[in-house]
Amino acid sequence: MGFLLSANGLLVLYITIILFKLYYGDDWEGLYESITGYGLGGSSMALFGRVGGGIYTKAADVGADLVGKVERNIPEDDPRNPAVIADNVGDNVGDIAGMGSDLFGSYAESSCAALFVASISSFGISHDYTAMSFPLIISSVGIVVCLVTTLFATDLFEIKDVSEIEPSLKRQLVVSTILMTVGIAMVSFFALPSEFTLFNFGTEKAVKNWHLFFCVSIGLWAGLVIGYTTEYYTSNAYSPVQDVADSCRTGAATNVIFGLALGYKSVIIPIFAIAIAIYVSFSLAAMYGIAVAALGMLSTIATGLAIDAYGPISDNAGGIAEMAGMSHKIRERTDALDAAGNTTAAIGKGFAIGSAALVSLALFGAFVSRAGIKTVDVLTPKVFIGLIVGAMLPYWFSAMTMKSVGSAALKMVEEVRRQFNTIPGLMEGRAKPDYANCVKISTDASLREMIPPGALVMLTPLIAGTLFGVETLAGVLAGSLVSGVQVAISASNTGGAWDNAKKYIEAGASEHAKTLGPKGSDAHKAAVIGDTIGDPLKDTSGPSLNILIKLMAVESLVFAPFFAAHGGLLFKYL
Amino acid sequence: MGFLLSANGLLVLYITIILFKLYYGDDWEGLYESITGYGLGGSSMALFGRVGGGIYTKAADVGADLVGKVERNIPEDDPRNPAVIADNVGDNVGDIAGMGSDLFGSYAESSCAALFVASISSFGISHDYTAMSFPLIISSVGIVVCLVTTLFATDLFEIKDVSEIEPSLKRQLVVSTILMTVGIAMVSFFALPSEFTLFNFGTEKAVKNWHLFFCVSIGLWAGLVIGYTTEYYTSNAYSPVQDVADSCRTGAATNVIFGLALGYKSVIIPIFAIAIAIYVSFSLAAMYGIAVAALGMLSTIATGLAIDAYGPISDNAGGIAEMAGMSHKIRERTDALDAAGNTTAAIGKGFAIGSAALVSLALFGAFVSRAGIKTVDVLTPKVFIGLIVGAMLPYWFSAMTMKSVGSAALKMVEEVRRQFNTIPGLMEGRAKPDYANCVKISTDASLREMIPPGALVMLTPLIAGTLFGVETLAGVLAGSLVSGVQVAISASNTGGAWDNAKKYIEAGASEHAKTLGPKGSDAHKAAVIGDTIGDPLKDTSGPSLNILIKLMAVESLVFAPFFAAHGGLLFKYL
Repeated sequence: MGFLLSANGLLVLYITIILFKLYYGDDWEGLYESITGYGLGGSSMALFGRVGGGIYTKAADVGADLVGKVERNIPEDDPRNPAVIADNVGDNVGDIAGMGSDLFGSYAESSCAALFVASISSFGISHDYTAMSFPLIISSVGIVVCLVTTLFATDLFEIKDVSEIEPSLKRQLVVSTILMTVGIAMVSFFALPSEFTLFNFGTEKAVKNWHLFFCVSIGLWAGLVIGYTTEYYTSNAYSPVQDVADSCRTGAATNVIFGLALGYKSVIIPIFAIAIAIYVSFSLAAMYGIAVAALGMLSTIATGLAIDAYGPISDNAGGIAEMAGMSHKIRERTDALDAAGNTTAAIGKGFAIGSAALVSLALFGAFVSRAGIKTVDVLTPKVFIGLIVGAMLPYWFSAMTMKSVGSAALKMVEEVRRQFNTIPGLMEGRAKPDYANCVKISTDASLREMIPPGALVMLTPLIAGTLFGVETLAGVLAGSLVSGVQVAISASNTGGAWDNAKKYIEAGASEHAKTLGPKGSDAHKAAVIGDTIGDPLKDTSGPSLNILIKLMAVESLVFAPFFAAHGGLLFKYL
Repeated sequence: MGFLLSANGLLVLYITIILFKLYYGDDWEGLYESITGYGLGGSSMALFGRVGGGIYTKAADVGADLVGKVERNIPEDDPRNPAVIADNVGDNVGDIAGMGSDLFGSYAESSCAALFVASISSFGISHDYTAMSFPLIISSVGIVVCLVTTLFATDLFEIKDVSEIEPSLKRQLVVSTILMTVGIAMVSFFALPSEFTLFNFGTEKAVKNWHLFFCVSIGLWAGLVIGYTTEYYTSNAYSPVQDVADSCRTGAATNVIFGLALGYKSVIIPIFAIAIAIYVSFSLAAMYGIAVAALGMLSTIATGLAIDAYGPISDNAGGIAEMAGMSHKIRERTDALDAAGNTTAAIGKGFAIGSAALVSLALFGAFVSRAGIKTVDVLTPKVFIGLIVGAMLPYWFSAMTMKSVGSAALKMVEEVRRQFNTIPGLMEGRAKPDYANCVKISTDASLREMIPPGALVMLTPLIAGTLFGVETLAGVLAGSLVSGVQVAISASNTGGAWDNAKKYIEAGASEHAKTLGPKGSDAHKAAVIGDTIGDPLKDTSGPSLNILIKLMAVESLVFAPFFAAHGGLLFKYL
């Protein structure tokens, strides 16, 4: 899946460039301006995948659990539960399609931002096609590096035991990062002229090829740091999640307090990593540096997505084994695979958020260039109100997505209850439930409930740009970026920590865990409450914020010339 | 208390100005620069009051409840509970001393910011003492207005029934706001020259006296809007809290999800109100406008604090009645007073956060002026990394304060348990518990646990200013301001909503509430979990953020000349 996505993204982008070239000829600026539409397309798609998928999967999951596990006391993935198919489909829709479209959006957008900035630099002016294609070459090298990395897992270090899975998956990421650093060095020295000029909001900036090597590499390594921090805060092998599990001793309330505090704390290192990456790449190569840093972070996407998709795939395999009534041994094996997948999925989420931050900053830079703004000065009222309202948007958006999950789950609960009550023999396993109806409910709900948050994302740049002008819009983008990344990281990690704290108690693998368990103990019940609260946080509202910050930025970029020419109506006529 | 605080604050400030004048003579700029030290003092005091007080009260509250109500099954405020005195003292320390010092800090800081900006404007240059004292006159008029307002409650509309308390308290606020608007108009037209110039980051700006009337008034009215929005989202008379209460039907998890979503949603209107107030006052009179808008919001502080202090006072009265073994009738009466007080306390919290946002923006402006920065451009890497790291600080700070409450409460639990186990006859009421020891634990814990968050607040500006320079520090201040205000509002309102959702179920006053209750039902248990989670959010981490954003700004202002001259070491030598 990782290779398919990255290769396809690259291929389609390449074909688009070739086709547009036929039309635009030598007008590279016009060409790469049109390419920004590709980013907008990718990102709009991601809105459906991430937000809709998130609502879909959690409506089904929460709905299935509330009636099945709590009311009817039947195990997870039991075929008698009418919502079980919707739940399994949801894992795919949310964690595979949603995550994939999110990362594909980042990929498309950072390429577009880099290409657009490059087209107005000396590459574009001197028509240096190889240098111009630097962003695409980086991505291509990434695919080759990930292919080579695969050999490490399949041939060099074969996995002999279940306990080796998780370290092996994590090693893949480190290997691909090290190999990629070499790859970036080669591309930077061979594809780029040794010195060239970039445009930095009206001024010119001389950049050397080794500057770009640092820009791409720092993005790549920042991604690794974010991924590993996410893992530290969400894996039950380390003390943060174990402390959360321990707090279940005094009940659900302390579990929630400790979980929220953990999520808040987990933003510190990723934000410093992002800040350092931004400072270095911004200083060395302005907004082009940010765009290629984002591409650097995404260059190992094939490996990242592979280990990320691993989780939901083994989760679903376990579900199918349960439903097919296969032996307990198989279920135990899929559970072990699933546990390893849970941790690696957290790494993927970290990547998605980190790259979203860099990508939207790059798009923000491209937007500012295109709108012809020279400074975005916090000391002007127009920008400041944009900043504070922008910082509020992630909260508004999260309130919407969380409420959407709640009401969609409620509909699912009613349908599952109805089937248990009206289909005779369902509980005894003599009759089959109407799976299709539950799938339909999740599908309908996700499509309908997606409208308000989608409208918020799509309309905000249009309203801000048209009524308040490009300066306020720039403030909104900056505000939502710096605030949204915090909410996204803390929500995802809080949810992940609760999930794994519950699994830690259930597994009972250590002495400490045994004092908290077994399943059904008071501590376990408290952990289950935390897990349920975390579901919409980690799979819907948290990751959806990636889309909020990216889509608003790319939309602003596409409409920048319009806003610059006709925007700010309110200030003009007031 | 309201009058005492505002009159004292004004008197001390006035005396300080007079004393400094003896030393500085005609050097007004020097004089008002020294006055900023007054703001720093007020704000440091508030750090102890708000953060320490918040930890104190919630450690005692959670500790008393966990052992008393949950383990020993004795009622709240039962004299057998060793932590009951600490709990009552805590109400005073947190809700009275903490809130008072927070608002006093805002008061001192906004006066200082306004006076400092005025001293470098044409008032200061032409030595127009009356115009220069405009901020102080506004505050004085506010005291008179609040005195007149008091007559409405005591003489004009006497309260005849318990149900009239809450509307009457809320009416006080509206009356004082309307009267104050008239007062501001009079001061603006009589105390100010009809036109004068202000400095706006290097450029001069002509301002008319009616501009300032609008600046002060919009702050005043924005405060009212924020207060009423807070009330709407946290009072159980309206649908948001009733929906949260209803979600308890499906358990604690849905209660928490709906409560968090409510908190997120509740930031929308306050942020728009703050944004509009900022835009208008910033556009009309630059940073001076912001400072007087903050003073406008705080001008009715005497009334605001009075109705705010009302809650903890009646709460403690109820506690004393319970402990003294007085008749049930008295307890019922204090409970009714307490319920009204809960809602008005929420209004006070809204004011505190709103004014903190305006005050820190004014201080931020004064800092930027004093540091000699002309623009704070988001498009420079130095500023942008400051912005994103600044936006992270509220999360770091909240993680610390929430953890502090958790560990302090744990110590309290152990002590209460120890006393119940070792003092013979305590449960039967034959022996007296050692109240003093619990008070000591809360005191020690709050002083010790305050150190890490206090250090974060105090050291961040010093480190950012010294190592990264004034531009990065400006970014940090702007980032923590726009992000912190969202976290503070959502945390306070989420906690308030959970508290009142629990009270709504307990009171069982409506048909809907009766279906959820009575006390001890599953829905009520779920509501109690929400309430416990909300305690540190609404009384410790949420309101403490006011201090974070204000104290960092005033500290930066005081050290601005040092940072401007010697700061940015890292960038100088790298």
